[in-house]
Amino acid sequence: MSEYEKSKLNRVKRGANRATYDVEKINTILDAGFLCYVGYIYEGKPITIPMAYTRREDKIYIHGSTANRMLLSILESEETSITVMHLDGLVLARSGLHHSVNYRSATLFGSLKKVESDDEKTEILKWIVNQMVPNHWDSLRPMYKKELDRTLVVEFTIETASAKVRDVGVADEPEDYELPIWAGIVPIKQVAEYPIADKGEPEKMEIPKHILDYYEQNK
Amino acid sequence: MSEYEKSKLNRVKRGANRATYDVEKINTILDAGFLCYVGYIYEGKPITIPMAYTRREDKIYIHGSTANRMLLSILESEETSITVMHLDGLVLARSGLHHSVNYRSATLFGSLKKVESDDEKTEILKWIVNQMVPNHWDSLRPMYKKELDRTLVVEFTIETASAKVRDVGVADEPEDYELPIWAGIVPIKQVAEYPIADKGEPEKMEIPKHILDYYEQNK
Repeated sequence: MSEYEKSKLNRVKRGANRATYDVEKINTILDAGFLCYVGYIYEGKPITIPMAYTRREDKIYIHGSTANRMLLSILESEETSITVMHLDGLVLARSGLHHSVNYRSATLFGSLKKVESDDEKTEILKWIVNQMVPNHWDSLRPMYKKELDRTLVVEFTIETASAKVRDVGVADEPEDYELPIWAGIVPIKQVAEYPIADKGEPEKMEIPKHILDYYEQNK
Repeated sequence: MSEYEKSKLNRVKRGANRATYDVEKINTILDAGFLCYVGYIYEGKPITIPMAYTRREDKIYIHGSTANRMLLSILESEETSITVMHLDGLVLARSGLHHSVNYRSATLFGSLKKVESDDEKTEILKWIVNQMVPNHWDSLRPMYKKELDRTLVVEFTIETASAKVRDVGVADEPEDYELPIWAGIVPIKQVAEYPIADKGEPEKMEIPKHILDYYEQNK
């Protein structure tokens, strides 16, 4: 499948010209982050929770405590949606109406199941940690069985999805371009600052290469 | 009211030591951003939509097209929740389990109504634009009546809320501190890059002081 089928659920109505259903483009948006917003319904009310995630093929993995109200609730309902957004810039137009932001966002709809096997859970937790900082997991102390036991790992299968991308300049009303009003883009990005060692052993150690690499690529 | 009353809806269960119900602290988190995540229920499914917002007292204002499916849907249901999160750092622990992020997040529950008067709508749109870039609105071409007519402005009254803040160092298992594993914090922040003028008049103009101020304060 190269494109998600459009349905009533995922079809983008507002700003349809910015929409994409292309699987690879959506995966690129997903792989550029590690924080997603998971929707769930609690006593009839829609609530959004930020969570760390990772993606493999058409699966998104999230995790939490085995007592996590939201994870238990969405597992019970067997479906949810997940939103990922990256803010890329402020679009300052000549008129209020045409103010906007440049961004890449994806909304995923799918079904959920609990991951049961310890081996699979461990592998997925490794992916989640490495989604934050590539190649990080292998530098850590291995997980204990009791830690795995209190960790709930949830697999979300993407059944349909859409994305919206705005990555162009200002779009004002034709007659407004003559106005002596400043308009333009203020690019926005998320950056990393220099790593700060924890007290004790890390203060005496060199910062591992994979963490310095992360800093260099995100500073 | 200095603190939101704790109820089943807003009480933080996981990581309760990071929770706050203090109105001023929650307002500070809200005022530090301009993008929120609004939850709504579409055909029984929870969906999250990123939106620009502003806050005045206990009201959050969002806006969109008068044809916006989500805004019309939440107006009909008369209630929703809104989530705001700022990511402040990666918490790299000695064990996978204690990996975390530093952040400030707020979840608001409340009721909704449509803002009807043109004067009030114009004032709120000014607040929304100025929430992105302070003092920006007055430099723009005034809104036309026809633009106001196609803009839906929604007032969300915060009825209850909670926030979670993590702003401390690594918290590992006591016995892990001896391990020769690097641990620490990688601070993360959102920054602005130098403004890029739109083609035409703006290329010949100086960048307005309020936009340069925004850049200087966020670079």
